[in-house]
Amino acid sequence: VEADDHDALVEILDELHPADIADLLEQVSRSERKALITLWGVQLDGAVLSELEERVRDEIVAELPDHVLIQALQELETDDVVYLAEDMDEPQQERILRALDDVDRAAVERSLKYEDYSAGRLMQTEVVVAPEHWTVGNAIDFLRNEEWLPESFYDLIIVSPQMHPIGTVSLGRLMGSARKTRLRELMNEDFRTFRVDQSQEDVAYAFNKYHLISAPVVDADGRLAGVITIDDAMEALEEETEEDLRLLAGVGDEELSDGVFTIARARFVWLVVNLMTAIVAASVIGFFSETIQMHVALASLMPIVASMGGNAGTQTLTVAARALATRKLTASNMTRVIGREGIVGLLNGIGFAVVMGTLSALYFSDHVIGLVIGLAIIGNMVVAGFAGVLVPIGLEKLGVDPALASGTFVTTMTDVFGFFAFLGLATLVLM
Amino acid sequence: VEADDHDALVEILDELHPADIADLLEQVSRSERKALITLWGVQLDGAVLSELEERVRDEIVAELPDHVLIQALQELETDDVVYLAEDMDEPQQERILRALDDVDRAAVERSLKYEDYSAGRLMQTEVVVAPEHWTVGNAIDFLRNEEWLPESFYDLIIVSPQMHPIGTVSLGRLMGSARKTRLRELMNEDFRTFRVDQSQEDVAYAFNKYHLISAPVVDADGRLAGVITIDDAMEALEEETEEDLRLLAGVGDEELSDGVFTIARARFVWLVVNLMTAIVAASVIGFFSETIQMHVALASLMPIVASMGGNAGTQTLTVAARALATRKLTASNMTRVIGREGIVGLLNGIGFAVVMGTLSALYFSDHVIGLVIGLAIIGNMVVAGFAGVLVPIGLEKLGVDPALASGTFVTTMTDVFGFFAFLGLATLVLM
Repeated sequence: VEADDHDALVEILDELHPADIADLLEQVSRSERKALITLWGVQLDGAVLSELEERVRDEIVAELPDHVLIQALQELETDDVVYLAEDMDEPQQERILRALDDVDRAAVERSLKYEDYSAGRLMQTEVVVAPEHWTVGNAIDFLRNEEWLPESFYDLIIVSPQMHPIGTVSLGRLMGSARKTRLRELMNEDFRTFRVDQSQEDVAYAFNKYHLISAPVVDADGRLAGVITIDDAMEALEEETEEDLRLLAGVGDEELSDGVFTIARARFVWLVVNLMTAIVAASVIGFFSETIQMHVALASLMPIVASMGGNAGTQTLTVAARALATRKLTASNMTRVIGREGIVGLLNGIGFAVVMGTLSALYFSDHVIGLVIGLAIIGNMVVAGFAGVLVPIGLEKLGVDPALASGTFVTTMTDVFGFFAFLGLATLVLM
Repeated sequence: VEADDHDALVEILDELHPADIADLLEQVSRSERKALITLWGVQLDGAVLSELEERVRDEIVAELPDHVLIQALQELETDDVVYLAEDMDEPQQERILRALDDVDRAAVERSLKYEDYSAGRLMQTEVVVAPEHWTVGNAIDFLRNEEWLPESFYDLIIVSPQMHPIGTVSLGRLMGSARKTRLRELMNEDFRTFRVDQSQEDVAYAFNKYHLISAPVVDADGRLAGVITIDDAMEALEEETEEDLRLLAGVGDEELSDGVFTIARARFVWLVVNLMTAIVAASVIGFFSETIQMHVALASLMPIVASMGGNAGTQTLTVAARALATRKLTASNMTRVIGREGIVGLLNGIGFAVVMGTLSALYFSDHVIGLVIGLAIIGNMVVAGFAGVLVPIGLEKLGVDPALASGTFVTTMTDVFGFFAFLGLATLVLM
């Protein structure tokens, strides 16, 4: 790049996978990125754009001349074009769409009408279909004469004359059968379809559970609208799990290349929630300040009670939130799981009560303190067990993602209950 | 089941997908499960076994008569047989393997020799290969004459006479080409292979990054040993992400159907680590007990300092651990990311210092307390930023999974530093 040698650059980049080029672009500085893209020029590979993380992609797309961008998009399948077009500003989106050929433009425009994170957005509209009365020979000849086949394509979708999908034939089956066999006989009728308005979460879940490779997507009238392939579903699955993981920790969808101010602002919001809950917990402590002044040992022991409850709650919460996300926790086993978490909390509570009660009684030569901390730990760990499973279930009932801010709710409960039980008991017994 | 009606049961179960039957079995009680399996008898579908979660599967497999189990395994591909066989006790494993036909047994035994979670364990040995001098017609005729083709099969692997993979031809390409075309011309030479000893984490990462559908696995001599398909990689990816999520929260690989004692014991271990770190934090507080006795307001404010640091640290940690797992955080951007986390901590620290300092100063009518808590928050949030990114990087350098117990390390650092900074400053200024 420094030598301004276009041909050498193209030669190097040609050797690399688009995903690796995207990684490279993400890791260099903004000005290096710009120089590289400019030098690369019209040979820019559209696939690289769809591999980039959002912020870098937006930056590059906003700066690319239209003709380069159009050239780059021409080679992509419609789902990738949709993925890139959805983040463009409107005038740019319009200019770009106008340059696509009619069929593609119509498909992209239709997809953009579906909601974000829906099956309609995820699907590609390049579908290979065949009527059921065809033979294997017809299908193979048809495929041979097609000029252009989608890159990811694993099943032939068999459709009725009204374009309703009625079965699928995998390429493997098609290959392994005699030319004169009718598709009707090979057809797998036990296939899963998605509606365009289903969430990508549903899609990812079904692909993972039923080991699907590709699945037809139908519109409101049951007509074939597109197809979702496993690579798109795999990405959606990764996205959904990643989102849960981040929500549990109170982080949004920041990216590694984001700037400090963007990140600081996004995290600030979550920390404000945490501050408010910490103030609630602090006011519980403030309520017992007289007791603490008389028995200052309580001040050093109280964070232990809160911390054990907080950790036990987080453990339960993580398991429960994931069980809800993977649909393992259902109405039929809910009572059992809730009861079990209570018992686990009780068992571990008793264990830690004995350990911590003994240690405290010995250290402070005061068996009453040992008794108080022991009882508080048992109570708090039972609360942690119930809170850890009831909070995500409750959030889900309210239609909120169970991972969202659950952590903060649960630790608030264990902090407040822990401080209250420990200091309250101490006040009763010691004062 | 209650009516003991075998035929009706078989009819109902035949309609269901194996994954749904597995879900059903997981949700009923142990005795119902046993009754259902016994009634189902030899028609038991092997695919159901590989869908079950580990504990339930082990229970069923241990109780199944050998002839039913052998019957069930016969229909499975070798990777699924390996998956089931690896958890059997040795005498059972031997009896079962002896019943498989020679080719399958050899393949399963070879796979079992590879380490857990390696590419060798993940792959299936049913591979469709062809020499490069074949034409499309040869390949199609060969496939038509094969009695049995693997269920998940998307690429023909082209091998040299020494069985080294030299290219792949997707079924889509094969279909779309004239019979007389040589495979050599269609062959994609830019494919990725895995070695049998590579980790499943590497495999999942590469499938996700490069959108692979299937990839050959080679042994130490570079000879083709098997193939990994995207559905296996998708499961491995889900498993690895899930593991990270659980490790961050301090939960092992417990399952929803595990009993209370199993779960309580597994979580106990993690809580012991937490207890020890909480005791360290408590002893810091104990060190300043005189100061607390004089200014009891400090007792209610100190958990706020610790909690803000803990949360900020967890946010950073989650982002950093995921960036390491997805290989976005590399040597080339490490310094930038570490610096950025420090600055984000500083910015948010200043923000919360102003808020909390003002509130405390007003509430306690004491501007010195406001100043002390403000400074402690700034310091602790910078520490949180650095700890959140340096702890996982350090663990990775040591060859440990960066998600493992990182949370505990980071919150211990922020607790200890938070208490120390806040109470230490207060002692200096107020005493």
